Amino acid sequence: MTERLPTIAVVGGTGNLGAALAGRWAKAGYSVIIGSRDASRAATAAEGLAKESGGQVTGRANKDAAAAGDLVVVCVPFANHQAILEEIRSMVSDKIVVDTTVPLVPPKVARVQLPPEGSAAQIAQSILGQGVQVVSAFHHVAAHKLARDQAVACDVLVFGDSKAARGRVVKLAEALGLRGIHGGALANSAAAEALTSVLIFINRAHKVDGAGILITGDIMPLEDV
Amino acid sequence: MTERLPTIAVVGGTGNLGAALAGRWAKAGYSVIIGSRDASRAATAAEGLAKESGGQVTGRANKDAAAAGDLVVVCVPFANHQAILEEIRSMVSDKIVVDTTVPLVPPKVARVQLPPEGSAAQIAQSILGQGVQVVSAFHHVAAHKLARDQAVACDVLVFGDSKAARGRVVKLAEALGLRGIHGGALANSAAAEALTSVLIFINRAHKVDGAGILITGDIMPLEDV
Repeated sequence: MTERLPTIAVVGGTGNLGAALAGRWAKAGYSVIIGSRDASRAATAAEGLAKESGGQVTGRANKDAAAAGDLVVVCVPFANHQAILEEIRSMVSDKIVVDTTVPLVPPKVARVQLPPEGSAAQIAQSILGQGVQVVSAFHHVAAHKLARDQAVACDVLVFGDSKAARGRVVKLAEALGLRGIHGGALANSAAAEALTSVLIFINRAHKVDGAGILITGDIMPLEDV
Repeated sequence: MTERLPTIAVVGGTGNLGAALAGRWAKAGYSVIIGSRDASRAATAAEGLAKESGGQVTGRANKDAAAAGDLVVVCVPFANHQAILEEIRSMVSDKIVVDTTVPLVPPKVARVQLPPEGSAAQIAQSILGQGVQVVSAFHHVAAHKLARDQAVACDVLVFGDSKAARGRVVKLAEALGLRGIHGGALANSAAAEALTSVLIFINRAHKVDGAGILITGDIMPLEDV
C-alpha cells in the first residue's frame, strides 16, 4: 500500500536546521513549504532548495506555511519559540506539530539550563493546547552535515504523548536516512534537549565536528514488537 | 610513570550497580571497599566479589567504607540518596564523590521527572558542600552486563565542575573497559539522568536488553586536545 506523503511545513525554514531538513525531505519526495518571517526571503530560499534537491519546495510567511502544511515542523531559536508558536497556533489545530527547539540560554549554551516547565516541548504543548499533537525530535542532528549530504551518525529520538503521532515522525527521520526511535512521553523530551548542551560541550572540549548519539542494543521497530 | 591506584569505596555496594562496578574495578587491580547499611552483609558480599574477581574487596558499613576510600562512589536508589549522603558527609570532605544516582520516581520510571534542584548530582553537591568534588557518571551502564562480564556498548558521560576530578573518573570508566567522555559541568548531569528514563522506555517499548548510548564523532581524549 502506498500512501500519499504529507506536505511538510517547516516554520523557521530559512535557518540552518530548517533548511537542511527541508532540502532532505524534498529530495525524499515530500512536498515542502518553508516558512520565514519574511515571505519573500522564504520564497528565495525555497527556490535555492528546490534547485539543490530536485524536489518541490515553496516559501511563504511562517503563518501561511503552517496553514498549508499537513504536518508542521518548528525550527526556531528558543528566544523566538513562544512568539512563533502563538503566531501559528490558530493554523495548526488538530495537526501534528514537530518541535525541534532546544532551550539553549546564551551565552552558556554548553550548560544545561532547562526551563521551569521541564522542556521546550512541554512549553509548546501548553501554548498550542491539547488538540494539537506535539512531537519533539531532531534535536541532535548536525544541520551542516545534513545540508551537505554527509553521513550523519545520529539516531533521532522521538517524544510525544501519542504513539501514532510519534510513528509519523519516525518516518520523517527515516526519510532523512536516519533511524527514528520512540523515546516515550513528551516530558521525556527534556532528556534530548538537555543532551544537546552536552554535545555542544563535547564538540568544544573534545574538538569534534558534530558529535551525535547512537542508541545501542537490538532495537526492533515499534510496529513489530 | 605509574601511580598507585586509589582505593575505591562503593557506598551501596551490595546493590546491582554497586556490586557490578566493585567487581570490575577489583578485577582491574583497584582495592575496593563496599559499603552497606549492614556491615556483615557488606562483608559477605565482599567475600563473594573478591572470589569472583580475583581482586581485593572488603566490606564495611557505608560510613566506614566512605571513611576508608580515597574516592567514594555512591550507588543508591534515589529514595535513599539524601539520607545516605548526610550519613557519609563528615567522612568525605576534600574527596571526590562519584554520584551514579538517577532520580527515578516510581512507578513511572520510564518518564523523566527531574527534581526541582535540576539533578540528583546537584542535590548531592548541595548536601555535601563545596569542599567535596562531586562528579556524576555511570548512569547508563547496564549492571547485569557488567556483572556477567558481557560486552557493554555504552559510553560513560562524566560531569563535574572540576576538570581534574572528571579526569579521575574517566580513568575509572576506562578501568571497566568503557570509554569515559567529559560531559561538562555538574549541572549537565541532568541530561544523563533524564536519558536513563528514555533508555528504560526504549528497553520496554522496543524490547531491548539494556539499551545504551554511544557518542559519535572523532572524540579525542581531553588530555590530547
